Amino acid sequence: MSSNPAEEYVSYFRPEIDAMSGYTPGEQPKVANLLKLNTNESPYPPSPGVKEAFGSFDVARLRLYPDPMAQELREYIGGMFGLPADCVITGNGSDDILNIAIRCFCDPERPAACLDPSYSLYPTLCGLQGTECIRIPLTEDFSLPVDLPARAARANLLLIARPNAPTGNSCSRTILAEICRNFQGIVLIDEAYADFASDNCADFASRFANVIVCRTFSKSRNLAGLRFGFALAHPKIIEGLMKMKDSYNVSMLTQVLALASLKDPAYFADCVSKIRLAREMLTLGLYDLGFRAVESETNFVFASPPDGDGRRFFEELRKRNILVRYFPGPVTGKWVRITVGTTESVSRVFLAAREIYREFGQEVYSLDSGRLVP
Amino acid sequence: MSSNPAEEYVSYFRPEIDAMSGYTPGEQPKVANLLKLNTNESPYPPSPGVKEAFGSFDVARLRLYPDPMAQELREYIGGMFGLPADCVITGNGSDDILNIAIRCFCDPERPAACLDPSYSLYPTLCGLQGTECIRIPLTEDFSLPVDLPARAARANLLLIARPNAPTGNSCSRTILAEICRNFQGIVLIDEAYADFASDNCADFASRFANVIVCRTFSKSRNLAGLRFGFALAHPKIIEGLMKMKDSYNVSMLTQVLALASLKDPAYFADCVSKIRLAREMLTLGLYDLGFRAVESETNFVFASPPDGDGRRFFEELRKRNILVRYFPGPVTGKWVRITVGTTESVSRVFLAAREIYREFGQEVYSLDSGRLVP
Repeated sequence: MSSNPAEEYVSYFRPEIDAMSGYTPGEQPKVANLLKLNTNESPYPPSPGVKEAFGSFDVARLRLYPDPMAQELREYIGGMFGLPADCVITGNGSDDILNIAIRCFCDPERPAACLDPSYSLYPTLCGLQGTECIRIPLTEDFSLPVDLPARAARANLLLIARPNAPTGNSCSRTILAEICRNFQGIVLIDEAYADFASDNCADFASRFANVIVCRTFSKSRNLAGLRFGFALAHPKIIEGLMKMKDSYNVSMLTQVLALASLKDPAYFADCVSKIRLAREMLTLGLYDLGFRAVESETNFVFASPPDGDGRRFFEELRKRNILVRYFPGPVTGKWVRITVGTTESVSRVFLAAREIYREFGQEVYSLDSGRLVP
Repeated sequence: MSSNPAEEYVSYFRPEIDAMSGYTPGEQPKVANLLKLNTNESPYPPSPGVKEAFGSFDVARLRLYPDPMAQELREYIGGMFGLPADCVITGNGSDDILNIAIRCFCDPERPAACLDPSYSLYPTLCGLQGTECIRIPLTEDFSLPVDLPARAARANLLLIARPNAPTGNSCSRTILAEICRNFQGIVLIDEAYADFASDNCADFASRFANVIVCRTFSKSRNLAGLRFGFALAHPKIIEGLMKMKDSYNVSMLTQVLALASLKDPAYFADCVSKIRLAREMLTLGLYDLGFRAVESETNFVFASPPDGDGRRFFEELRKRNILVRYFPGPVTGKWVRITVGTTESVSRVFLAAREIYREFGQEVYSLDSGRLVP
C-alpha cells in the first residue's frame, strides 16, 4: 500500500462481515520431522490411476473452459449409486456444496440447525449468509438428543455430519431416517468420512425428497489438494443447487483426476482398510494408556487424556513435533482430535502419550527396532 | 430417482432461487471442425513454463490440503504490482471473486450497480444474493453515461468491466478515477481483458481505498480450464473478502500452475501480441465488408453486420461451423461477439461473412493459396 493513500479507508462491508473475526488458516508449521495429524488428510498418495491420468493429461487443453456441468463425472458418480446424473452435483470440495446449500435454503427468515460439537464450518457459513444457526448440543456420549426434532423445527436446513466430526461416531441410521421423514425442510447429511464407516446413508438421497447427501475426496480419496466433492439428491433439489454454483466451479484437472480416482476402486479400498486398522490400533492403545476415546467411524480418533486436559495433551504433543487438533470449549476442551495416519505414526503418538502421562502410573515404553517393548 | 419416491418433492428453496431460471451452460457442441469463438478462450496453449511445472509436479502432494492463503502466489502477484501480499486475494477464477465481493458488500439494503450491456454474470450474482442490481445503460456508442454517478449513488458496490464485455471498449481512465474518488461505496473494476488493452487501472487499487481491481487467467493466460483469478485492493478490503472465501478455494495444482504462468512473461507477451494483431485484422476486415465494429481493447470484437441483424449473422455462421456469441435484446441484438483466434480463424470468419453478405454488394472473394484475393 502506498504510504500516502489518496483516501482514508472506510468500511462498506455488510455489518455482519465486519463483525466476524478474520479468517485464521489452519496451522501449517514448517518444522522438519513434524507429524501432521491435525486436518484428517490421508497418509497415502492418490491412486496409481490418478497418477496415470495426470501423466497422460494434455496441458494444452487447459486453454479451454472445463465442462460447467461436469457431465461425465456426474454420470459416473450417479452410476455408482444407481442414480441418473441429474441427481448429482459436483463442487470445488464439499465445502463448496455446503456453502451452496446454505445460500439456497437459508436467509434471515430461514434458519439452519446443526449439532454441537460438529463441523465448525456450518455456523461460519451461516454467519456469512446472515442466517441464524440453531446449535443443538449432542448428549454426553455424543449421541443425537431426543429433543432434536423439536429444537430443529424452526430450521429450514438441518446439517448432520454422519459420521460426526470431531467426535468420530455415527448416529443411528434408523433414528436419522425418522428425522428425515418428519423434518419440514432439507436435511443435509454430510458424509465426508462415510468411506471409513461401517455403513452410510447414500440411499437416503433417493428415499427422501428432502435429503442431500454430501461426500468429499479430501479424506478417503487422498486428494485434499485437488478440491472435489459431490452431493446426491432429488433432481429438483440438484436443479436448484445448480443455479447457485459458480458455472465453472470444478476445474478441468479436478474433473479428470476425480474421475480417474473413482475408476481405481481396489487402491481406494486398500487405503481405507489400512486406515481402519491403524485406527483400531490407535483407539485400543489409547484405552491401554487410560484415555477415553470415541469408537471412531472416521479417519480420526477423538480422545481425552487421563487428566481430562485436552489443551495440555495438544501442547505436549506439539513439543514432540506431533500436531493434532484441539477445540477449546467446556465439552471439546477435554479432548483432542487425532488424525489416523500410518501404523508408524500411531506408534509415535503412543510413545509421546506414554511419556506425557507416565505420572499416571503407566509403564514407560521405549522404541526398540521399531517394536514397542516394555 | 426411484419411480416410487417415499415422499413427494416440496420446495424448501428461498423463493428468489425458485423464481430464477435454471442454469443454461454455454454451448459446447461436439461438431468436427467447429471454430469455437463464443467464450473468449485463447487459441494458444498455456506457456512452456506451465507445461514444465505440470511435468515436474509430484502427484503425491495432492493428499494434502492446498495453502488456504495461497501465500507464495499472493506475494508474487503483489510484487508484480508493487504491492504487499496482503493487498492480494486469489480465487477459483475471477467469477469466484465477483461472487465473494457481491456477498460482502450487497444485501437487500445495499444494492449493486452495473452498466448495460456488460458482463451478464453481475445481475445473476445479485439475484442469487437477493440484492438489487441497478442497470445503467451505456450511451449509444457504448461510453459511460454522464449521469452514471447519480444513477449509481444508491449502490454500495459499482461493478465496472474495463475493458467492457461484450462491447470490447474501455472507458476513460480519467473519468473512472473521478468516479472512484466520489463514489460512496466500493468500485470493482473487472479487468478480465485488461492484458489485451492499451492501458489498465491496476494502480487504482493503491490510489483509492474503495477500489478492487480484478483479473483472470482464463483469457490472456490461456488457462480457462485451470480456474484462477485474483484481485488487488486495500489490505482492509482484502481482509474482509478473505472471511467470505472458501478456505481452500484455489486447488494446489491451480496455485502451482498459475505461479508458473506468471514466471513466463515472454510467452505471455507473445500470445497477447499475436491476438492483438489478429484483432486488428478482424476489425479492419469487417469494416471492409460493411460491418460496424467496436475498436476492441480485448480478445474479441463486437460487430454488427450490414443489415444490423445479429441473430441472422450468428445463425448463418453457425451453419458454417463457426460459433460466436449472440446476446438477444434491443441494443445487443444488432451485434455478435466474435472471439479473436488465430489469423487462420479470422480468415474463416471473413470468408463466411463475405458469403453471407454478398447481396450487400460486396465483392466475393475466394481463398487462393492461403491469401485472400478478389
